[in-house]
Amino acid sequence: MQPYNVGILGATGLVGQRLVSRLHEHPWFRVHALGASERSIGQRYGDAVRWKLSDPPPPPVLALEVVACRPEAMPGCDLVLSALDSTTATDVEPRFARAGVAVISNSSAFRMDPDVPLLVPEVNASHLALLTRQRERFGGGFLVTNPNCSVTGLALAVAPLERAFGVLRLVVVTLQAISGAGAEGPRAIDLLDNVIPYIPGEEEKIEVELAKILGTIEDGRVRPSSVAVSAHCHRVSTLDGHLEAVSVELARSASPAEVEEALGAFRGDPLAAGLPSGTATPILVRFEPDRPQPRLDRDQGGGMTVVVGRVRRCPVLGIKLELLSHNAVRGAAGGTLLNAEILASQKLLPRGPAA
Amino acid sequence: MQPYNVGILGATGLVGQRLVSRLHEHPWFRVHALGASERSIGQRYGDAVRWKLSDPPPPPVLALEVVACRPEAMPGCDLVLSALDSTTATDVEPRFARAGVAVISNSSAFRMDPDVPLLVPEVNASHLALLTRQRERFGGGFLVTNPNCSVTGLALAVAPLERAFGVLRLVVVTLQAISGAGAEGPRAIDLLDNVIPYIPGEEEKIEVELAKILGTIEDGRVRPSSVAVSAHCHRVSTLDGHLEAVSVELARSASPAEVEEALGAFRGDPLAAGLPSGTATPILVRFEPDRPQPRLDRDQGGGMTVVVGRVRRCPVLGIKLELLSHNAVRGAAGGTLLNAEILASQKLLPRGPAA
Amino acid sequence: MQPYNVGILGATGLVGQRLVSRLHEHPWFRVHALGASERSIGQRYGDAVRWKLSDPPPPPVLALEVVACRPEAMPGCDLVLSALDSTTATDVEPRFARAGVAVISNSSAFRMDPDVPLLVPEVNASHLALLTRQRERFGGGFLVTNPNCSVTGLALAVAPLERAFGVLRLVVVTLQAISGAGAEGPRAIDLLDNVIPYIPGEEEKIEVELAKILGTIEDGRVRPSSVAVSAHCHRVSTLDGHLEAVSVELARSASPAEVEEALGAFRGDPLAAGLPSGTATPILVRFEPDRPQPRLDRDQGGGMTVVVGRVRRCPVLGIKLELLSHNAVRGAAGGTLLNAEILASQKLLPRGPAA
Amino acid sequence: MQPYNVGILGATGLVGQRLVSRLHEHPWFRVHALGASERSIGQRYGDAVRWKLSDPPPPPVLALEVVACRPEAMPGCDLVLSALDSTTATDVEPRFARAGVAVISNSSAFRMDPDVPLLVPEVNASHLALLTRQRERFGGGFLVTNPNCSVTGLALAVAPLERAFGVLRLVVVTLQAISGAGAEGPRAIDLLDNVIPYIPGEEEKIEVELAKILGTIEDGRVRPSSVAVSAHCHRVSTLDGHLEAVSVELARSASPAEVEEALGAFRGDPLAAGLPSGTATPILVRFEPDRPQPRLDRDQGGGMTVVVGRVRRCPVLGIKLELLSHNAVRGAAGGTLLNAEILASQKLLPRGPAA
Repeated sequence: MQPYNVGILGATGLVGQRLVSRLHEHPWFRVHALGASERSIGQRYGDAVRWKLSDPPPPPVLALEVVACRPEAMPGCDLVLSALDSTTATDVEPRFARAGVAVISNSSAFRMDPDVPLLVPEVNASHLALLTRQRERFGGGFLVTNPNCSVTGLALAVAPLERAFGVLRLVVVTLQAISGAGAEGPRAIDLLDNVIPYIPGEEEKIEVELAKILGTIEDGRVRPSSVAVSAHCHRVSTLDGHLEAVSVELARSASPAEVEEALGAFRGDPLAAGLPSGTATPILVRFEPDRPQPRLDRDQGGGMTVVVGRVRRCPVLGIKLELLSHNAVRGAAGGTLLNAEILASQKLLPRGPAA
Repeated sequence: MQPYNVGILGATGLVGQRLVSRLHEHPWFRVHALGASERSIGQRYGDAVRWKLSDPPPPPVLALEVVACRPEAMPGCDLVLSALDSTTATDVEPRFARAGVAVISNSSAFRMDPDVPLLVPEVNASHLALLTRQRERFGGGFLVTNPNCSVTGLALAVAPLERAFGVLRLVVVTLQAISGAGAEGPRAIDLLDNVIPYIPGEEEKIEVELAKILGTIEDGRVRPSSVAVSAHCHRVSTLDGHLEAVSVELARSASPAEVEEALGAFRGDPLAAGLPSGTATPILVRFEPDRPQPRLDRDQGGGMTVVVGRVRRCPVLGIKLELLSHNAVRGAAGGTLLNAEILASQKLLPRGPAA
Repeated sequence: MQPYNVGILGATGLVGQRLVSRLHEHPWFRVHALGASERSIGQRYGDAVRWKLSDPPPPPVLALEVVACRPEAMPGCDLVLSALDSTTATDVEPRFARAGVAVISNSSAFRMDPDVPLLVPEVNASHLALLTRQRERFGGGFLVTNPNCSVTGLALAVAPLERAFGVLRLVVVTLQAISGAGAEGPRAIDLLDNVIPYIPGEEEKIEVELAKILGTIEDGRVRPSSVAVSAHCHRVSTLDGHLEAVSVELARSASPAEVEEALGAFRGDPLAAGLPSGTATPILVRFEPDRPQPRLDRDQGGGMTVVVGRVRRCPVLGIKLELLSHNAVRGAAGGTLLNAEILASQKLLPRGPAA
Repeated sequence: MQPYNVGILGATGLVGQRLVSRLHEHPWFRVHALGASERSIGQRYGDAVRWKLSDPPPPPVLALEVVACRPEAMPGCDLVLSALDSTTATDVEPRFARAGVAVISNSSAFRMDPDVPLLVPEVNASHLALLTRQRERFGGGFLVTNPNCSVTGLALAVAPLERAFGVLRLVVVTLQAISGAGAEGPRAIDLLDNVIPYIPGEEEKIEVELAKILGTIEDGRVRPSSVAVSAHCHRVSTLDGHLEAVSVELARSASPAEVEEALGAFRGDPLAAGLPSGTATPILVRFEPDRPQPRLDRDQGGGMTVVVGRVRRCPVLGIKLELLSHNAVRGAAGGTLLNAEILASQKLLPRGPAA
């Protein structure tokens, strides 16, 4: 197969770096263009980027020239992966879609747009049906988004419970890693010997995105789940891996063992099976009393597996548990790429305007 | 007034050190004897202790000889403050009570004993009525306990809500500081770039202790509150200050502003007013979006004020908020001392056997 | 005595906050005007500042209006304490001096100016002689500076060795706290589970400033010490307190015990004795094998005492030791204030233009 | 080739875990027996170990029964890799050697024994000549050791300088990671917002081990290098990767560029080339002003490459630089394994008593 040509929007940021890294030796995709903001344009990528990952950048991209995030500056892309901030994405992403390019975005800008799939392939591959409507709007291009980094793991853990027992409502308290805030995140002086009990906009995102992801397609539109969600968000001193304490009320009462079984048996939508960035076990249930832990469990399944533990009775809502999801992989770059892969495997990617 | 002679049980541990430090220049109490475990007995306190506080130890205690935690090794004590671990306390504390000594304990050993007050003076000074029953059991001595370090702050914040609106149930997720685990707490290698989502026995303590504290005295016994409590506990990389995210269902619906007002107006039981270790404002409400924070807010009111913030609607239980309490002060040494002070101010302290 | 009216330049930054805090209830000085950068001008100080200290801001300053850092915007100041960054200071500080105001600065801009004292009062109060020359230049105003935050502690520890034995050369390796970089210091993502082995310009400052401080006054000018200094600087995950490992070659060989004695006996220049921000023991020698430690020792003497430990033989240069100095107190706000105090006590402060 | 059967002594500790992990799918070695202390004996390895690495333990070893660290409890081992603490190693390791087993040890117990190679294969493969003498002592078995975790990286960086210019003396200040202290290392409460400027015995080890490693073989014995070494050791809040600031005096003066060239050109002893755990570039020189950094550079070359940066003039000793070495890989498990591999490749391993 001829690999798809991929452009990356926001290629010098933390998520952009992870995309660049994960595309190296990807079986279906190859980096074709790297877009970034004004101050990087015209530089070699190796000069423009302040690389933050412990794996070094793939040598082939070092010499690529960084270009502007405009369709005309990135000709020949079959698709773009967007790691833009929300404000920039609002302007930039539709331009690509209108130019006939598939935009697979990690940004929050269009997640709640009724025509845009908010996609976790194992959970709601059926939402790809929204693309029909978008094609009418944009011509050949379209937008697909993945959820906020603290939502993806939650959606994966809640989906099997929704199917097996129904989920009425849940309280989720997050302990989120620093990398979730990007390269311009909190200062060390604000986080050492401290926790910041606030992440702007995050609680609202969790509360609305989960219902959309768990929603069903009716008449070509997403009908959101009626689950009530309450989120408290914290930034803590971990590098990667969002930990979430969840108390959940099920529609049909279930024991901790039944919940563990439903979680452990989850394999995800068959459409999502076998994708290069996927994992056969999207959820791993651990039975030790003190797991999951961010440093020990975030890399499970190459960072694509959500680790759940401490499933036990909740005196208030019925069931409580702890879950961990790698925010920068499953919750960002890996999730974005998985979305691109399911589009490719379902033959939903247009070959770009230059093809 | 002739100061009371105070013995400290477990004087070399973290809480013991804080007691020693706080008793220096105390208006009512003076350190009379320091008890510790086998390996310290016979040493000067200055040699036996591995001092962990940034304030240096008070010079007068450095030369005191550490003795065994037995009544006969600590003659002349009017009262003892106990910072013993639970196992040791189970054996040691009743010996002192039977010897006629008042035991004011931070240990969990007897907190749920029906005759023992689990005391937060601003909240349930009325529980001192239990002492009558204990005096019959022990003669002149008795035991008074303060709650687990993650419970005291919660009890202070919930008490005004219970009074103003009634509290039906709540979910509390803690982010607890390292000092809560004492000098033999977690290893650095287990907590760097990590969170431990488990503290043995802690969730159970929170779930039962709160109901007892909020209980009423009926027929000389505590009738526990019917509040349902669900706790998730985490150890995070902060030195001092337990942060707690709480979602609460009130019996009578209230707006965030009404909750803030009830909290801000709380002054505590008049019996607790004016105690040397107390504070005129046991609760401080903050209105910034990102407070309380452990490092910035834990020392409020000398560590005795609980700081509450982010009061807002909870889509699941009605109200949610964030609270912070200094675990080692309000939740341990300061709370123990405050209990001793209310006993002294209420003339409930026996002068000891040597008096 | 009528207190001096003090203006603070850069009042919203980390050092500015410490100055504001330390001037509260100061016996000789009172806050008269608060200057900051463009975006804060016209706001109440309480609104303009993002307060980072655990002690809350003194209530009286909260309502003060922040003004521009220009002499005409701050009339009535007898002196100004400057916490400006170096670039701004280069422009702003001389304006105040020319307007007849004494400028006591923490900035690096004029430290190496031959007419400007680089002052650590216990070490080189004699350098105040340079003021004569400045007065000719500026009229009544002048500039006095304190050293870089990693230099003050080193200068205090080296001065007694210079006097007792002579110091030929030294290698100093610093482990510097985050607060040394100010409120806009390193990001948490760059420092968690990491050390940054580089602080721009810092090594050069250490290498030149120490020689000036240890210099002697000859013909009205400073003749720098001939000590050779080599510095390696690191930023580590501590909040406050710069730790420095020093290997030093003495002109006259001395044993570790002799070095400890010279350090422990140091009391500083009599002109510096009894100043409000000073300490009777500028150096504390500890004898435990594992001290000084930043968290346990930085607050010694209210943060104004340098703690030295681990004095031992160095197989390469003769003597090695470890020293700790509170960078934000002794190395910045406290040092600046001490300089203002010695000027006041020596009657070297002009009463300002408005007086 | 028939793989060698390997026993691991101290298999449940941190270094033991890394050895177990690295032996999985090793081309020459396979895990044959796992020895640990009393409390683990008889348990399945999967139950006995508290696994601390983010890579999960290799499934095949989970069911292995842990045995005692005695030759008779570990029959059939061709060699043992020892991660024992020094006290236990003093007793246990010679028993294996006397039983005819090759002991490749990470322990400090016999490093300075004149008959025992203190081996860094790229640097002093010639020291394997000492084995002749040991064989006379033990029969077929023998001991080979690798240096202290803070010495290996230093030795690798100094060796090319010694060869190119001669090294007279050096001052090294270490900032050592927590994992260097093993699973029972410092408590979080002692290291959060802190640095511990002391590691028992470490400075002495650095000062003597380096001279032995750099020594030459004369008359079948090691004649130590005359280099004078002074070490200051610190424990800082990093997980892995010892950072070292070095000032060095060369016998023949060299510019920073010449030093960088000598370091960058270093390839190591040809006998060490091509070993499975080795790397073609034992030293990587970086030219950015702020590298090496522990989190970004420790995994270079799979953790076997020493990263050197900031080579510059030292006003005191001539040259200064910063180096980083992965303490748990290059400085421990990886170094031990590399020693076993050079023994295998040189046909110096006896086939064990059972063979």
